[in-house]
Amino acid sequence: MPTPETRLAELGVQLPDPNPAVANYVGAVTVGEIVFVSGHGPYENGDYSYKGKLGRDLDVPTGQKSARLTIVNLLASLKAEVGELDRVKRVVKLLVLVNSDPEFKEQHLVANGASDLLVEIFGADRGRHARSAIGMGALPFGISVEIEGIFAL
Amino acid sequence: MPTPETRLAELGVQLPDPNPAVANYVGAVTVGEIVFVSGHGPYENGDYSYKGKLGRDLDVPTGQKSARLTIVNLLASLKAEVGELDRVKRVVKLLVLVNSDPEFKEQHLVANGASDLLVEIFGADRGRHARSAIGMGALPFGISVEIEGIFAL
Amino acid sequence: MPTPETRLAELGVQLPDPNPAVANYVGAVTVGEIVFVSGHGPYENGDYSYKGKLGRDLDVPTGQKSARLTIVNLLASLKAEVGELDRVKRVVKLLVLVNSDPEFKEQHLVANGASDLLVEIFGADRGRHARSAIGMGALPFGISVEIEGIFAL
Repeated sequence: MPTPETRLAELGVQLPDPNPAVANYVGAVTVGEIVFVSGHGPYENGDYSYKGKLGRDLDVPTGQKSARLTIVNLLASLKAEVGELDRVKRVVKLLVLVNSDPEFKEQHLVANGASDLLVEIFGADRGRHARSAIGMGALPFGISVEIEGIFAL
Repeated sequence: MPTPETRLAELGVQLPDPNPAVANYVGAVTVGEIVFVSGHGPYENGDYSYKGKLGRDLDVPTGQKSARLTIVNLLASLKAEVGELDRVKRVVKLLVLVNSDPEFKEQHLVANGASDLLVEIFGADRGRHARSAIGMGALPFGISVEIEGIFAL
Repeated sequence: MPTPETRLAELGVQLPDPNPAVANYVGAVTVGEIVFVSGHGPYENGDYSYKGKLGRDLDVPTGQKSARLTIVNLLASLKAEVGELDRVKRVVKLLVLVNSDPEFKEQHLVANGASDLLVEIFGADRGRHARSAIGMGALPFGISVEIEGIFAL
């Protein structure tokens, strides 16, 4: 089984620097064997991409790209916290928050962009996770997706 | 003290098969003594019931029925993960997500449909839990309630 | 390093009685070294303050006051659960839920009212935490902010 870092390289995904802490919070906190990772968004090249609401401004495939990019940012913070991603024994849970028009009903499909990438990186046994996918009234900076995660070491 | 399975039988509640995993996620993940259960909805007979928004399409008693049915589905996934529900030492926390009209303000009353059933099944000492009840802009499939849970073994 | 209770006194903050449990849930549940605290709101003098939606009824500074008052209530429940707040080794995670107009995009600034107070009370090393700040379609009683938290003993 290749390491998560090897799989990222194979997928052509480069982890960015973790998002800078711009207030009194941090990217991740570890308690015993559990790592709680902050809500992240689809950040790249110094700004958020994929702004807008699903069902109004963005379609599902675009939302999936947003979710995938959000996981890349989340993994950057996770790696900064744990060192090697191979220390992660299990992706435990995702909370996938989708900025939604009130009538949008496919948050679960958007969330698959996140879940699929995690399984590509960690494999099915380690990578499949508990999950909630829900529709938000609004999100910071008008981003389309925010995701927080729990990981076991 | 009767087992949770006995209480379910006394209440006339039959746990369904756990909702099938239709993507790269699972119904529950255990880390040490903590079980994290995915967001579930009011599923029965092969489809979601109680679709719509509280404060617009559904009233509070209907929302409570939706929350109750959602817990039945959540417990099916929990049981599939842990075997006997009697292994649960404590219902730890619920996050109760209520599909809401922007002016709906009684998410806590809807959530009582979930909390009350858990106490009926597990008793007050084991069954009372930390909880957040909040109003969502939208939910997958247009369901009225989604609930995720944390349980201690 | 002063105790959290000493810092609260220095800041002129008096913890209220914990919000009474008015249904089948509790203010906090401890599993091993982790305390899960229920969603709290900006309660004072027997009622909720700061009702309304950010971006429509309330501005960011008012939202920050609401978040700060919400943390005071959350800490009252935490203290009732753990006894001395000095037992808290780390503020682990906040989920900050901001009642939002669909176009409001500054939930993270509102959340700073919560994060900053925790750092004032617990210091930077213990007080800085993982965090998600998100925009809700609606909240119970029409409150502007609800916050749940995870703490390590």
